[in-house]
Amino acid sequence: MTAPVLALHGGCGTLAQELLPTAEWDEVRAHLAQALRAGWSVLRAGGSAVHAVEATVVVLEDSPHFNAGHGAALTRDAQHELDASLMDGATLQAGAVCTVRRIRNPIRAARAVMEHSGCVLLSGPAGDDFAEQQGLAMVDNHWFTTPRRVKALADIQAGRAGGAIRPVSEADRHGTVGAVARDAAGHLAAGTSTGGFNDKPPGRVGDSPLIGAGTYAMNGVCAVSCTGMGERFIRHVAAYDIAARMRYAHHTLEQAASHLVHDLMHQHRIGAGLVAVDAQGQVQAPFNTLGMARGWIDATGQLRVATHQEIFDAGRA
Amino acid sequence: MTAPVLALHGGCGTLAQELLPTAEWDEVRAHLAQALRAGWSVLRAGGSAVHAVEATVVVLEDSPHFNAGHGAALTRDAQHELDASLMDGATLQAGAVCTVRRIRNPIRAARAVMEHSGCVLLSGPAGDDFAEQQGLAMVDNHWFTTPRRVKALADIQAGRAGGAIRPVSEADRHGTVGAVARDAAGHLAAGTSTGGFNDKPPGRVGDSPLIGAGTYAMNGVCAVSCTGMGERFIRHVAAYDIAARMRYAHHTLEQAASHLVHDLMHQHRIGAGLVAVDAQGQVQAPFNTLGMARGWIDATGQLRVATHQEIFDAGRA
Repeated sequence: MTAPVLALHGGCGTLAQELLPTAEWDEVRAHLAQALRAGWSVLRAGGSAVHAVEATVVVLEDSPHFNAGHGAALTRDAQHELDASLMDGATLQAGAVCTVRRIRNPIRAARAVMEHSGCVLLSGPAGDDFAEQQGLAMVDNHWFTTPRRVKALADIQAGRAGGAIRPVSEADRHGTVGAVARDAAGHLAAGTSTGGFNDKPPGRVGDSPLIGAGTYAMNGVCAVSCTGMGERFIRHVAAYDIAARMRYAHHTLEQAASHLVHDLMHQHRIGAGLVAVDAQGQVQAPFNTLGMARGWIDATGQLRVATHQEIFDAGRA
Repeated sequence: MTAPVLALHGGCGTLAQELLPTAEWDEVRAHLAQALRAGWSVLRAGGSAVHAVEATVVVLEDSPHFNAGHGAALTRDAQHELDASLMDGATLQAGAVCTVRRIRNPIRAARAVMEHSGCVLLSGPAGDDFAEQQGLAMVDNHWFTTPRRVKALADIQAGRAGGAIRPVSEADRHGTVGAVARDAAGHLAAGTSTGGFNDKPPGRVGDSPLIGAGTYAMNGVCAVSCTGMGERFIRHVAAYDIAARMRYAHHTLEQAASHLVHDLMHQHRIGAGLVAVDAQGQVQAPFNTLGMARGWIDATGQLRVATHQEIFDAGRA
């Protein structure tokens, strides 16, 4: 038996601290802690890393504070198109959905694809239909909409119509949620879920539902969930590249994760972050942006959550 | 200036030689040679590896003998849903489409996505619409249909309805086309295009449009296009894993490609093949099935094509 480990992120597209009231940051951290507790209760009961990752991500999807599920970004057409993936490091089985519109919790659909479809990735309405057949909760597309996303899209589109060259903030560009876990049997898992970015072209698929790009897990090596401008993560096969550096170049997780975020992505001026855990249970959560919503449960059972540099105690698990 | 190199595959789901008349195998080889000549004429004129790969794959997509474009497999709903990707090893730029239905040559759409969309992967009707806006040739979905695929789908569905446990042949299960090239400037590129497999679930996305899974290219390392049961290639991030073994474990292309096809996929009883070229212009085309349609142009300008073990001269480039 190994000690369970759980870590999550809520995207590296965090707003500057002064742009939201203190009470709202308190709520963001409360939701991060609630997500950690949901996953931890699975692990403490002897549940699998896959199940813990799913339970953690579901809470983040249901929170309006993160760009996944309820609170997801809007496409150029003011619709929500959601992407998610889940990978079991014990079996290398994986499941994912992309550009789905009606599944309340896309991470649950990713798990159903993994376990019941014979496929790894289902796209578009077929992904929605499969989830419905599997008995998952379905919602209307506007269920995902929050006032913040409506305003963000209106601001971007008004700026474009007015010819303004407004620098698009990290918060507009991306944001994703994800989790990694090691369970008591030592198995690793990773999952990621996102709404993409505000004003994204319809049909655009980022790295989050792509195994190897946004998500990867392999027992004995690591489990990784990424956040950042997805196209660059796809081109570098970012999540799997961390595993490959550990497997073939004998880098530590810290070296491989730091290289990706602080060297490669920084050099290309790409806002990036990730959470990862290695086979020994070491957690890494690097980011090169102003902040990254994140949290983990340390070996003593203490919850830690953060949105910017400062790390907060959030009680016992 | 380096000597250009070009290689292609037409899928590892080749039928047994005795199942088709000799004249049909002759035509398959003629189409492979025609595709090689199309790509070679680009390279000889000083064109880019990306452009040569595109030109090669277009000919294979237009041939009824291969599972891509005209001749593509049919979904469970008797529709064609096509996937393709293209990657430029010089810039690591990449483009791809998945589950598109109206683009005559999905590999051209992959290039347009790479060059003009700001995205890497466009999915479904949005991919079709983007291609149409880019001025690419559009067709009705039934343009892709051939009698062989209609019969194959009917046979599979009749077998299922009758409760027959018919072993699904490699030819039913997959088939894909792809090409890799090194141009006179030493740049590498890879591209892959497919209809998936007969009777596939609607919305299913395989490895072909996924950068790192079915396709990868990185200057100084290798360019790879895979064929085989896509789900397993996704889970192992197969194309990028070859590059990663070369980058980090200093394997040769031959070692890394052989490991994938003859060790990893063979061990999982997965029919698999690939074509690849390294920075020195060495071509590899391993497969673990009965046959794999394939071809390359050697250093003397001689065309070589094959469907099973025997390799045929097909004249001068």
